[in-house]
Parts: sequence; structure tokens; C-alpha cells
Amino acid sequence: MDVRAPPRDHNPMDLPITPLPPLEADFATLAAELFEALRAAHHDGVGITRETYGAGETAAMRMIETVARGHGLHTQWDAAANLRITLPGTDPTLPMACCGSHLDSVPQGGNFDGAAGVIAGLLALLAAQRAGPPPRTLLLLVMRGEESAWYGRPYLGSSALFGAFDPAWLDLPCLQDPRLTLRTAMTREGADVTTLAAGMMLIAPHSLSHFVELHIEQGPVMVARAVPVGLVSGIRGNHRHPQARCVGEAAHSGAVPRWLRRDAVLGAADFAMRLDASWRVLLERGEDLVMTLGIFTTDPREHAMTRVPGELRFTLEYRSESEATLDDFLALAEAEAAEIARERGVRITLGPPVRTPPALMDARLLDLGRRLCSEAGIAHEVLASGAGHDAAIFANAGVPSAMVFVRNEHGSHNPREAMDLADFLEAARVLRAILLHGAEALGRDLEAIGR
Amino acid sequence: MDVRAPPRDHNPMDLPITPLPPLEADFATLAAELFEALRAAHHDGVGITRETYGAGETAAMRMIETVARGHGLHTQWDAAANLRITLPGTDPTLPMACCGSHLDSVPQGGNFDGAAGVIAGLLALLAAQRAGPPPRTLLLLVMRGEESAWYGRPYLGSSALFGAFDPAWLDLPCLQDPRLTLRTAMTREGADVTTLAAGMMLIAPHSLSHFVELHIEQGPVMVARAVPVGLVSGIRGNHRHPQARCVGEAAHSGAVPRWLRRDAVLGAADFAMRLDASWRVLLERGEDLVMTLGIFTTDPREHAMTRVPGELRFTLEYRSESEATLDDFLALAEAEAAEIARERGVRITLGPPVRTPPALMDARLLDLGRRLCSEAGIAHEVLASGAGHDAAIFANAGVPSAMVFVRNEHGSHNPREAMDLADFLEAARVLRAILLHGAEALGRDLEAIGR
Repeated sequence: MDVRAPPRDHNPMDLPITPLPPLEADFATLAAELFEALRAAHHDGVGITRETYGAGETAAMRMIETVARGHGLHTQWDAAANLRITLPGTDPTLPMACCGSHLDSVPQGGNFDGAAGVIAGLLALLAAQRAGPPPRTLLLLVMRGEESAWYGRPYLGSSALFGAFDPAWLDLPCLQDPRLTLRTAMTREGADVTTLAAGMMLIAPHSLSHFVELHIEQGPVMVARAVPVGLVSGIRGNHRHPQARCVGEAAHSGAVPRWLRRDAVLGAADFAMRLDASWRVLLERGEDLVMTLGIFTTDPREHAMTRVPGELRFTLEYRSESEATLDDFLALAEAEAAEIARERGVRITLGPPVRTPPALMDARLLDLGRRLCSEAGIAHEVLASGAGHDAAIFANAGVPSAMVFVRNEHGSHNPREAMDLADFLEAARVLRAILLHGAEALGRDLEAIGR
Repeated sequence: MDVRAPPRDHNPMDLPITPLPPLEADFATLAAELFEALRAAHHDGVGITRETYGAGETAAMRMIETVARGHGLHTQWDAAANLRITLPGTDPTLPMACCGSHLDSVPQGGNFDGAAGVIAGLLALLAAQRAGPPPRTLLLLVMRGEESAWYGRPYLGSSALFGAFDPAWLDLPCLQDPRLTLRTAMTREGADVTTLAAGMMLIAPHSLSHFVELHIEQGPVMVARAVPVGLVSGIRGNHRHPQARCVGEAAHSGAVPRWLRRDAVLGAADFAMRLDASWRVLLERGEDLVMTLGIFTTDPREHAMTRVPGELRFTLEYRSESEATLDDFLALAEAEAAEIARERGVRITLGPPVRTPPALMDARLLDLGRRLCSEAGIAHEVLASGAGHDAAIFANAGVPSAMVFVRNEHGSHNPREAMDLADFLEAARVLRAILLHGAEALGRDLEAIGR
């Protein structure tokens, strides 16, 4: 099913353009103060550290909660210790419009990965409150444990929302402190692990009209293209081959001629070049794909300048918004491996891929974002997200989802994340408009909870 | 200068074919007994170990000396503790015809690398003795320290012969026992290190009419071609780049598209493939070349499946009989590196090569060997030696030199060396004939010592 095609009886292109007013000046000040307060509270000397289900994460959430309550918003903690902030709408029968992001960070990370989405959501609710209560309730979710850096698993809080929290995760040790399990950490920070272990859903997907998340871009595309705002078409899934190998035969570098060699480095280099050529062809055809051979190494135990290398170990990862593209690329890689085996007398084994499915963003919400930006004269670009996000969990739970990226230098997961406040405020405008008007674009106005 | 071209006034093709009688049966028995005695004395449980300037090497040399003296040959030890075995000729004014090889091994090596050449030389002298004394003296050199596995430097004994022993080598530590220096080891085994340190020549190149060495092939060519005897056209020199690098920029594997990547693995793989293509072209043009990227590895400190690799370290070695081919290949490699830098945004640095010059075998002796084999119906092949040999030292000292290879399975420097005695006896026939008749082919019969 191509979820990008709008339903026949409802063409969002017919809708009038929703107005996209700038955020008022005091919201810019509030955003700057909140970013600075978070930075001051959680700078560890090198970067920002707010551990998953840890004291820093909770403190940051409480800081946001305090501001929200100070402005009269409602707050509540769920069984996964996620924070829910709501601005009640005038019609409680309508599905809620939802936004959100996370407040944990990697160890010595940056100040904007996650926090930008939470603060943008808070500004959206406050701006809507000031404009007078909207018909549908607005929900800001401050989610737990998005980063896999602490327990090896990402999206802990958002998975719990939709009953997808695997009870086995409770026994995961903290990678930084193996005596601490996720169970202990979650319990300490107020989660109800018994409820989670029972697989209870904490929120029904159909109780949400849609979900939108703002996040810094973690790659260099928007800086290279000079656009402050990105509209995400999908979150790439991936295939990973962590234990790939090219096996030939070790031999004396001086005494074995080319026609008798089975050189593992040349076999693997040939493979890399053929994959690179295929990648280029797929990009030219308009497919979404990135490919990485992150580890690529001869055997250190046999390292010698004068030995024809007998084995090379490598990893292969490729990502795409399209499951079909991933499967095509796998088939292509296997065919090339077989061809090289025939030509070079080496054996290339990839092993079965570890698969993470892609998550498409809703095409109608994407189109709404595009039209909003064009109308307001905001330079923008549609791009795929290479990194994973909580929004993927919502999309794969059936909630129409959107993501807005903010231009950011130096990537993320390091202290050098660099997001301009002006760029953030532009993206936050877009987030607010999608939050407020996404349901119209989806044609869900008349749907009531419990459909 | 093309040393393969015979002098105008002397065409060896005009010479009558020298007879090549098989070795008599008792020599085959003696050879088998000597190989077995060496194996029994120096098998360490895994392979054969006879350390450079060590007790095992000396014991093996004394075993050969004992047999030689038992048959009435003369023996003598020189200042480098090389063993010289002579069958005096009837005309002491003629330059000596010389053969030889070494008796040290790598740790846990095979029984034939080196020893085959010494035993073949001994058989040649004994057969000549039985046939009646030849006009020119025959000299068998049992040389020390050919393997670099013990002190990091090869050809210690043969370098000393021609005053090319670098006194700095005396301070080299034994790689297996760093408390032991080469000086101590040499002194213990009877060498006169003071004479060597003074750079004295132990033998004058012009006192030798020519040199011929028999050795097992250390590659798979002769097994693949099914020929028992190889005639060596030259000993390859090489260029080595031990610290080559491809440097790009590390990045998030999911978030950086192809056009913004500077991928060190793809840059280095591209380089390897271009070198491989150039290698193929040079082979098609009839050039002698082998090329090896023995070490090829991303940085283990940064290893991650989800990181675009920022650096790959590699070694590059190429070998050829022709210095010009080596220089051409270097120029080609540097041009490709520059091209890849432009195309892929990576920087490939090779650093200056460590150079070892090639050593051509004498074309007239090669031709003699070829004609001897053809006449006797011995299947043979002309091939380059990829590994270095003492014969290179003789050739580069100006002694016309030849090498005869014996078919051998599984390469060398390992316990699985496998040489058939029948193949050995065929090659030893060829060695003996080149030893006895090489001077005729060179037109040196009338030259006296002291020219």
C-alpha cells in the first residue's frame, strides 16, 4: 500500500492554506532560557549528559513540567514515567493532536538532540493557549529513554505507550554501570514496571489524530543546502550485516602471481566498489539509500606487509525509507558477491541481515508542511531521516506522523551540536501549525474517539 | 644496460649442448639421508627451527662439513663463519665456479628452504669428483643468516662475503630473545666481527666465474604448471609503503547522503581496484609485477557499524624484476591517489617507498639452463623469484648468477613445505651442469684470476 497517496474522497490540496504566524517574542526568550537552563544543569565538563531513566533525565522533565504548570497546562506521568502535558480542547470527543520528543542524551552529547522537540512542543501549546483554546486537546509527550547508548535499546518510553515494551528489556544492564538494570533504574524514576511487563497499552493509537516531532538534523544536508527547516519524508529502516567476511587464501606476496592469487583485500575492495556503483545507480533512479562499510579490516593476528591477505572482515549497513529498496539492495549485494567469488576465487559471506523496518511519515502531513513553508517563505527541503526517532514508533503504531528538522552543524551525539535559535523558531512555527491543523489535512475532523 | 644481451663476439647459442647425465643412484640415497638427518636433528615438534647464527644452524653446517670431508673435499670457515667446501680444479689460475645456499630456517619452518641448495651443491661437487677433477675449482658456499626472521635483516653471510655487511647490524637484537645481539650470536658461532665491522671483502667477485643456487620455489607456479624444474630470470626488487593511509571524514551512517560523504573505505577500495586494473594491464604488456595490500584496516579505536569510516590504514608492496616497472607503478599509484582525492574528497598518502633493487640473473646462464633442460627432456619453466635469495647478493656484486627452482607445494616458511626427491634430483642435475659448464657459456674460459 502506498500510504503517500491521499484518499480519493479527500484531497488536502483543496484545503485553504493554514495561516503560519511567527511565534511571539516572549516565546523566543522562553526557549532561549530553557535551553540555557538545561545546558547549565547537565553539562558534565565535556558535553551534556542526561542518562536514560536517570536523575538528569527526570530533573530535565521536572523543569519542563514546572514551566508548563506555571502557565496553567495540565501535567501527568504515565506508567512508563513519560510526562504528558495537555492543553484541553473544547471538544473532548475529538482525537488529540500530539507532539513530543525526549530529554535523555548520549553520554557527553549535545544540548539539542531531543530537547529541541520538547521545547518546541511546549511553545506550541502555550501559543495555542494564548490564541484561545483549540477544539481538540493538544498533547505534548516528553518521552523517556530514546537513546540506545545506555541500555542498548532505543525508544523505551514510546514503545511502552503502544504496548511494545519487551519485558526482557527490564533485565538489560546499564552499559556504563553493569550493576544497574533497567528495571531498577525505571522503578527508581517512578515507572510501574509491572504494568509495562504485562504489555498494557498506555495510549490507544486511535485516540490521537496525528503525531508531530521536531528534531535537529543529525546529518549535514541542511547546512549544505542552506535551508533552516527540513520536512521528513520517512525514517529509514536498515539492514545490517555485522559479521560479513571475504575469505581467500594467504600466500607469499612475492612468489604468487596474479592468476594464482585469492586475495581477500582485492575481493572485498571489488565488492565495495560494485556496491558503490549500484548505490549510485539507485540514487539516479530516485531511490532513497545510504550504504556504509563501517568496519573493514584484515586480520590483525596475521598482519604482514608481505603476505597476500587471506581474510578480511567487514560490516555492511544500508538504510532506506523503502523496504523494497532494502530487499533489492540485498539481492544485488548477494549477486555481486557470487560474481566476485567466480572471478577472484574468494568467498564473500554476508550472513542474514538484522532488519529494522522503515517508517514512512504521512504524505498528507508532509504536504501540509510543504505548503505551510512555501506560503510563509521559509526555505525548506524534504529529506529522509537516517537516524531513528520516536516518531517511527508512532507511525508504525498507525498514528499518522510528521517530523520537522532544524538545521544543525556538526551532527549530533557530540558536544558540538550547533543549532541557531532563529532556525529553531522557524521550525517551531511549522511544528505548531502541523500540530494545530494536521487533523484537517488528514480529514479526521469529524472522527470521534472510539471509532 | 640490458645484461641479457650476449656480447657480440660470443654467441652461446653456437656452443655444443653440454651433456646432462642423471645423478647416480647412490647420490639419491645420500640426498635422502641428509634431508632426513637434518629433519631429525632440528624438528621442534611443529616444524624445523635452525636459528640464524645459532647452534642449530652451526650443527647442520658441521653435519655437511663432516660428509664433505669424509669424501675428501676441502673445507674451511671464513670470517663470517660461512662454510666453504672446495673440490680443487686442475688449473688454479681459473676463476672458481661457485654454488651455494643457506642452512638457517625461520622459526617452525620447513626442511627444504636453503638445505636443498646446500645438498644439491654437495652432490654436484661429489659427482664432479667422481668424474675426475675439473679444470676449475668448484666452490660450495654454505652461507649464514639468510632469513630475516631472527634479526630483521636477511643475507647476513652473503653480504659479508662482498664487504657489504653493515657494522650497525651487529647491535640488532634477536627478535625472539631481545637480550641476545647479533654480535654475541656471531661471536659465539665463530665469526670474526672485527674483520666484518672493518668492511673487509672475504671473497673477490672476479675470483668467481659465476654463481648458481638451487632453491625450492616459494610460490605455487610450478605446481600449477606441473613442471619440476624452474629457471629463474631474476629476483624481484620491491617498493614498500608500510604507512599508507586513506583519510576522509567520520560521519553518521544514516544521516549523511552519498554526495556529502568522504568515506575512507570507499576511497581505499577504489584505490585498490585501480591498482589491480593497472597491474592487469602491465601483465598483459609482458611486464613482471606482483602487488599486495597486505594490511588494510579501519581504525579499531573508532570501529562502529553505523559510522562512515574516517580513516583506513594500509600497506602497499609491489615487486618486479625491473626497476623501471617499479618506478612506473609508483607514478601510476600516485596519479590514481590524486584522482580519487578529487572524486571522493579523501586524501590518500603513500609516503616514500622503501626500495630494494631487483637482481637480474645472467641471461647467458639462463639460456644455458633452458637448453640443458630441453635437450634432456626436463619439463621446465622460466619464472621470476618473488622471494629474495643469496643469489641476488652475488648478482649485484657483479658475479654472473643463476638460480634453479625445485617444485614445492604449500609455499615455504612453514612446516608444510613439500618437495619430491625425484624433482630435487632433476633440478640438482641442472645445477651441476650449470656449475660445470656455466663458464663456457659466459666465455670466461680464457680469463684468469686477477684480470
